[in-house]
Amino acid sequence: MDTLQHDGDDMEWKESHFPVCSLCLTLFSVCVLLSISLSLFLSLLLSRWVKFEEKVEEGGERWSKPHVSTLTLHSLFELRTCIQTGSVLLDLEGYSLPEIVGECVADGLIGPELREKVSFVLLRKHRHQHKKPMHRSLADMGKSNNCPLKNKFMKKIPRDAEASNVLIGEVDFLDKPFVAFVRLAQATTLGGLTEVPVPTRFLFVLLGPHGKGKSYNEIGRAIATLMVDDLFSDVAYKARDRDDLIAGIDEFLDEVIVLPPGEWDPKIRIEPPKKVPSLGQVNGAVGGAGGGEDEEMPAPHELGEELQFTGRFCGGLWLDIKRKVPWILSDFSQGFHIQSISAVLFIYLGCITNAITFGGLLGDATDNYQGVMESFLGTALAGTVFCLLGGQPLIILSSTGPILIFEKLQKSSSRDGDYMELRLWIGLHSCLQCLILVATDASYIIKYITRFTEEGFSSLISFIFISDAIKKMVGSFKYYPINRGFKPDYVTSYKCECIYNITGLDWSQLSKKECVKYGGALLGNTCKYVPDLALMSFILFFGTYSMTVSLKKFKTSRYFPTMLRKLISDFSIFMSIMTFVGLDMLVGLDTPKLIVPTEFKPTRPDRGWLVMPFGKNPWWVYVASAVPALLVTILIFMDQQISAVIVNRKENKLKKGCGYHLDLFWVGILMAVCSFLGLPWYVAATVISIAHIDSLKMESESSAPGEQPQFLGVREQRLTGILVFVLNGVSIFLAPVLQYIPMPVLYGVFLYMGVASLAGIQFWERIKLYLMPAKHQPDFSFLRHVPLRRVHLFTLVQIICLAVLWILKSTVAAIIFPVMILGLMVVRKMMDLIFSQHDLAWLDDILLCERVRSCPHIFGASSLTPLLSHSPDGSSCTLIGCPRFPPLSLSPRLPSLLQ
Amino acid sequence: MDTLQHDGDDMEWKESHFPVCSLCLTLFSVCVLLSISLSLFLSLLLSRWVKFEEKVEEGGERWSKPHVSTLTLHSLFELRTCIQTGSVLLDLEGYSLPEIVGECVADGLIGPELREKVSFVLLRKHRHQHKKPMHRSLADMGKSNNCPLKNKFMKKIPRDAEASNVLIGEVDFLDKPFVAFVRLAQATTLGGLTEVPVPTRFLFVLLGPHGKGKSYNEIGRAIATLMVDDLFSDVAYKARDRDDLIAGIDEFLDEVIVLPPGEWDPKIRIEPPKKVPSLGQVNGAVGGAGGGEDEEMPAPHELGEELQFTGRFCGGLWLDIKRKVPWILSDFSQGFHIQSISAVLFIYLGCITNAITFGGLLGDATDNYQGVMESFLGTALAGTVFCLLGGQPLIILSSTGPILIFEKLQKSSSRDGDYMELRLWIGLHSCLQCLILVATDASYIIKYITRFTEEGFSSLISFIFISDAIKKMVGSFKYYPINRGFKPDYVTSYKCECIYNITGLDWSQLSKKECVKYGGALLGNTCKYVPDLALMSFILFFGTYSMTVSLKKFKTSRYFPTMLRKLISDFSIFMSIMTFVGLDMLVGLDTPKLIVPTEFKPTRPDRGWLVMPFGKNPWWVYVASAVPALLVTILIFMDQQISAVIVNRKENKLKKGCGYHLDLFWVGILMAVCSFLGLPWYVAATVISIAHIDSLKMESESSAPGEQPQFLGVREQRLTGILVFVLNGVSIFLAPVLQYIPMPVLYGVFLYMGVASLAGIQFWERIKLYLMPAKHQPDFSFLRHVPLRRVHLFTLVQIICLAVLWILKSTVAAIIFPVMILGLMVVRKMMDLIFSQHDLAWLDDILLCERVRSCPHIFGASSLTPLLSHSPDGSSCTLIGCPRFPPLSLSPRLPSLLQ
Repeated sequence: MDTLQHDGDDMEWKESHFPVCSLCLTLFSVCVLLSISLSLFLSLLLSRWVKFEEKVEEGGERWSKPHVSTLTLHSLFELRTCIQTGSVLLDLEGYSLPEIVGECVADGLIGPELREKVSFVLLRKHRHQHKKPMHRSLADMGKSNNCPLKNKFMKKIPRDAEASNVLIGEVDFLDKPFVAFVRLAQATTLGGLTEVPVPTRFLFVLLGPHGKGKSYNEIGRAIATLMVDDLFSDVAYKARDRDDLIAGIDEFLDEVIVLPPGEWDPKIRIEPPKKVPSLGQVNGAVGGAGGGEDEEMPAPHELGEELQFTGRFCGGLWLDIKRKVPWILSDFSQGFHIQSISAVLFIYLGCITNAITFGGLLGDATDNYQGVMESFLGTALAGTVFCLLGGQPLIILSSTGPILIFEKLQKSSSRDGDYMELRLWIGLHSCLQCLILVATDASYIIKYITRFTEEGFSSLISFIFISDAIKKMVGSFKYYPINRGFKPDYVTSYKCECIYNITGLDWSQLSKKECVKYGGALLGNTCKYVPDLALMSFILFFGTYSMTVSLKKFKTSRYFPTMLRKLISDFSIFMSIMTFVGLDMLVGLDTPKLIVPTEFKPTRPDRGWLVMPFGKNPWWVYVASAVPALLVTILIFMDQQISAVIVNRKENKLKKGCGYHLDLFWVGILMAVCSFLGLPWYVAATVISIAHIDSLKMESESSAPGEQPQFLGVREQRLTGILVFVLNGVSIFLAPVLQYIPMPVLYGVFLYMGVASLAGIQFWERIKLYLMPAKHQPDFSFLRHVPLRRVHLFTLVQIICLAVLWILKSTVAAIIFPVMILGLMVVRKMMDLIFSQHDLAWLDDILLCERVRSCPHIFGASSLTPLLSHSPDGSSCTLIGCPRFPPLSLSPRLPSLLQ
Repeated sequence: MDTLQHDGDDMEWKESHFPVCSLCLTLFSVCVLLSISLSLFLSLLLSRWVKFEEKVEEGGERWSKPHVSTLTLHSLFELRTCIQTGSVLLDLEGYSLPEIVGECVADGLIGPELREKVSFVLLRKHRHQHKKPMHRSLADMGKSNNCPLKNKFMKKIPRDAEASNVLIGEVDFLDKPFVAFVRLAQATTLGGLTEVPVPTRFLFVLLGPHGKGKSYNEIGRAIATLMVDDLFSDVAYKARDRDDLIAGIDEFLDEVIVLPPGEWDPKIRIEPPKKVPSLGQVNGAVGGAGGGEDEEMPAPHELGEELQFTGRFCGGLWLDIKRKVPWILSDFSQGFHIQSISAVLFIYLGCITNAITFGGLLGDATDNYQGVMESFLGTALAGTVFCLLGGQPLIILSSTGPILIFEKLQKSSSRDGDYMELRLWIGLHSCLQCLILVATDASYIIKYITRFTEEGFSSLISFIFISDAIKKMVGSFKYYPINRGFKPDYVTSYKCECIYNITGLDWSQLSKKECVKYGGALLGNTCKYVPDLALMSFILFFGTYSMTVSLKKFKTSRYFPTMLRKLISDFSIFMSIMTFVGLDMLVGLDTPKLIVPTEFKPTRPDRGWLVMPFGKNPWWVYVASAVPALLVTILIFMDQQISAVIVNRKENKLKKGCGYHLDLFWVGILMAVCSFLGLPWYVAATVISIAHIDSLKMESESSAPGEQPQFLGVREQRLTGILVFVLNGVSIFLAPVLQYIPMPVLYGVFLYMGVASLAGIQFWERIKLYLMPAKHQPDFSFLRHVPLRRVHLFTLVQIICLAVLWILKSTVAAIIFPVMILGLMVVRKMMDLIFSQHDLAWLDDILLCERVRSCPHIFGASSLTPLLSHSPDGSSCTLIGCPRFPPLSLSPRLPSLLQ
């Protein structure tokens, strides 16, 4: 707020903190920035609008948070009267304020005697807040060009922005208000008025007699709010006469939302919404009592052309290759970005953890025919090839739970014959079968996979992650038993001695293992206990998990600048690992560490690097192995393609298309290669692939204050994937560094991955609904349209399916596990009988993205929560229709009752 | 939405899910509940309003969450036209719908030929959602009286509530709309219309030709929203004619808040605000660009009449007693409540922890002249007496940090003389000095204690709690050293043996302590290590703390019904303690347990239960001890009275008044008694006292859906306090149960208490501001009025003061610590020179409550966050002015521009 103070004979605009003194003139000045593409409005002295209103907090000397402008109806009507009775000068060629005043005089709007006085008032020097250090003060920016803040704010203003200035004041020489709405023919920098280097296009002047300053101020806020309205600003640019403007105001009035006075404290500043509203729904939904009528049914599930059935031999594969070739260059160039480093580190740690864990488990299951060494090598080989040549290089290959189960069964069924040779033949058959599936475009059937199947599968994988992590942790309590009866005072009575039956050895010098090895017996009350390690492992495990969760959440905290918070959140896993590795080193206990093979040789000494196809099994095995191979093929196919569907979800806004056939082709080829080399088989890993995508997400940096940054897409490139797997390979030589990482820390990361990937699943949200009383349930759109008991029933079916899958996975029936995933699709089909298509459309078929894509010019998917974030209401997307930009007709559509 | 379906010749109101079919009539029915004291509005079919709107979600078959009604301007204007042109029947004696229709015919509003048809339509049977299980369906309640839900919802409706029914529909026999606004002379239960047993007072009927159903529906929502508006409902009750109603609508229109259409997605349901707005600010603040003008300065700091200086001998004490006597009976009767049980348990555990910890520390400091036994006994004695007779029985007495420091100094200075006798004399002098302070009304000086001093003191106490808890925890790592170099494989080489130099004893059978006792030497590599205990202690400590924090937060989670959540939150500390005691028992390690004395005798065998005043020290000591006593008196006075100020804060809404003089009187007397018995000295403990108040808070149970429950006050009684301390005394005999509680669990509770009491302190909020970029800072009212750098400077001064106090506390200067607290007040006085009174008014003097108290009829302090909760912006209270109820003039105040 500036007050014009009479200081003797001198006048100057001066800031005053508190109520306007009676002997001075007041001029409220507001300035508006407009652009064709994005409307911006910006006030120097009282408020500024860059899409949302920011007030000057005089006491606080800073800009308030951006908030939705709340107006009084009164002020809007008064504004309408002002435009009706005041002077409207359109496409004025005047370039200075006095010229504009001159025009007004020529129009007879003010008497010529006032011309001087009005010009004098308008041209008074503006003294802004910049005399004091002000946070993000625009005035500052205008004055000192080297101010760092300038760039920060100017970044938010598009280059073609134009300003609207609103000048409002009380003067003593007028007896009735003087109003002028001016549109300049060309945007011009009006001297001394705009303090930001943005040319002015519109000017609204309201000067009036004393006493109604507050009311004038409200009128100013009203015109300012109107100018940032997309529709009205368009009207303002195109208006031919006063009536067009009036019609614009009426149209605005017709669409405003009214809050009853008694129910809302106007002092509460309404935060800008996450989503921008749409024209069609402003009218329909405000009413909304008959909500069901207004909201369309969710759009039908729809997948891209990538899954069209071509009907030609290798038709899909050929299309995949054609789709991928043009991106070859950018697949590498786009990888050069700082974000890639964090992504590579994050995914590398995930992969190595996976490789080590599955390596260990495989070693157990296959009698060390495949161990950690094979796991490292295979991961590196398969991953690098796939990321280099695959259809969707964002997918991360890994050994997965189902594959592990299958290996276990293979090993036990080959008791009589040679395991490695049998495995080779199964691999070869499976490869062949995969290639047949590729050649016949069989991948197109996955378009029948709905949310039901997809969620069932990915929940299962998440649960496996979580249960494995916890199992491993619990295991360490068995591996390092705690001496529960230990009494500190009786430390003298605790010992463990090696009792000899052979003389000639210094038995007391032998370790536990040596003692047993040489046939000694261990005697004593501490032999079977290991102190501290189990508890330390638990602290490391739980600490890593909790710290990662907390740091990940830090992104949405209030502390520190956005960049720093994003960095902390992005590197949360890395920082947690470092912290707890540090803690472990500090405590110095002998916790189980990551064991990285240091020598390049197969884990089992009696096998070489190449498996020979013939000679060890009877001939019929070579043929019969086609049968188990079929199961492997189904497993691989489902595992790979469901993961691919999840990765290619349109909410991820992938631009380079996907390549289901090409993916499967390489998975098949790699199977054969790995079988020959005796390495594990690899297939897309859902959780890590999602984490990969999540760590490569791009968001817009420039947005109006208060607007949410827009999700722009994912850095689609092959570099991060390749680097991850090269690092995996190199890790064989990184043993000196990696050996400091305690295993419990890695289990903690595992647990986090499993939990985080659950967070994005609607199924999981629906499970939570069971525990919530109806009134506390989130406003999911499906809850508005489907009765709660139907939702619960749907969820229950999913839970039962999952339970069945879980049991199958854990029993001997595990071999038909892949077939059971196909079974999920059958269950889903049967649900058509129980549920109406309407309910299923809301619960099952809503794939995000479709609707977003159809109107991408207004909102990015900023509102779409990433799969790994913690606020998951994806379904609310369906609330969004298309925006209210086009078409604009200037014909007055005044509501009949208003006239 | 009900549709009237033609089924052959039969007609019935039937529910339909989706768009209105063309061949049927539609009747939107809405019903309004009104009462004089609280306006309630309630719809059966589409929406209901009980202060806030709840829609029927047809698909979801349930009531939506309560939300602020958003209307279109259009519908409000159409409603205005309806009232202007339709029939307005006031104080009608008709008791049935046909009679009302008859009146309309008599008025000539509808042709007599339509009378039958209109009556027929209005009287059609209503078939509601109750045919299906509907969550909180009103229809259900009306039908089945034994429905448990009924009571649940009826509880929300005041007994004198009256309903308004809004009936809206499309019919084919009308060619222009038929509108009737009816006010009945007496509220009547109209047959079949209202399904809840609430009599109808108002009736709004809008029937019109087909095709404008949506618009009619909006008009219905508009009148419904108007009817729940306090102001308009008053108008509706008092209106003499149509013009009064129109004026009421215009007044409503004049005050509505307008949201621009482009900035807000109307599908987002606006949550009911935490605070109800006030009339004066609706107009002023919506504009609000000149915010500083509208908001008054915060009211000056003001304390009750309890601290008036009477000028008479014992005047204050006498007033205190007079104030307290009338409450004697209710002080006990109000204690009989289920909540008291949780409070007693919670505070008992806090007190016992405190007693044990301070007991242990005192034992160290005083060479066991005062130990755990004395601590238990003293706590029980002093606490019981104070709660029984004190001025503010909600205050919990305890040994405090400053007192402990003083005891330490006393002990070390009495090396030459007798400690207990010296202490007795200091206690007697101090008691005398306290009584002098009481007699002279000296407590009145604490009204000069501002937020600055109060926060400095309570922060310090919180920090002492936190640092003590952490110190204790760290201590256990020293007490139970971990054998860092332990290699599980070399377990055979670990031993600890007792080496003898005297024969005749079986040395290998001796424990560590015995070995040392009999002069043996311990030899071995495990002697100085204790496995597992340190880590287990850490897990118990951190687990108890984290679990308490999580459970406390659970109150605001979405899961489980409110009652259960409240229970979990209230018993969070108890549940955490139980859980980790259970875990500790399960693991079975020899963690340090709570040691409760089992025999009733002084800790030190060479002292008795009574200290004799004479004989062991030279005579001059009896006189000179008055000097250290003065320091004790200052300390006691400050500690006691600042805690009392915090407890008596008006935001706690204590109704029975406080008794600063009476409190101090008893503290003084108890000092003398404790000195004679050789027990520790007791003074009010801030943190536990606040926890006590927090656990006794009452909230209103009946409130409109969406409205926040109101904070009604605290269960002020003496019973919980007395029980707590009696239990404390009995605890001496509870040893068998209490001995299972591990000390680290108690340290965890300590940590929680310290952290939780920080959460309510504005100082702490301001410290956090240092770490927040301006745009993320919460919307504290002081930030709107005081420049950020001034806020930071103020906080910095506080931090420095606190650091100085902390250092003083930890060094030899601790003796002048009490004087330094007085020093805080001096520093605050000096800050008048640096800060303007305006800034200080916002930062320092805003005591909550004043404003709240001045208009208690509209909001309870529901918005005021309790000190121990986690959302602490107390300062926003100053945003609230007085409400818009009175006075109501019915003269039309239509804005000039609207006419």
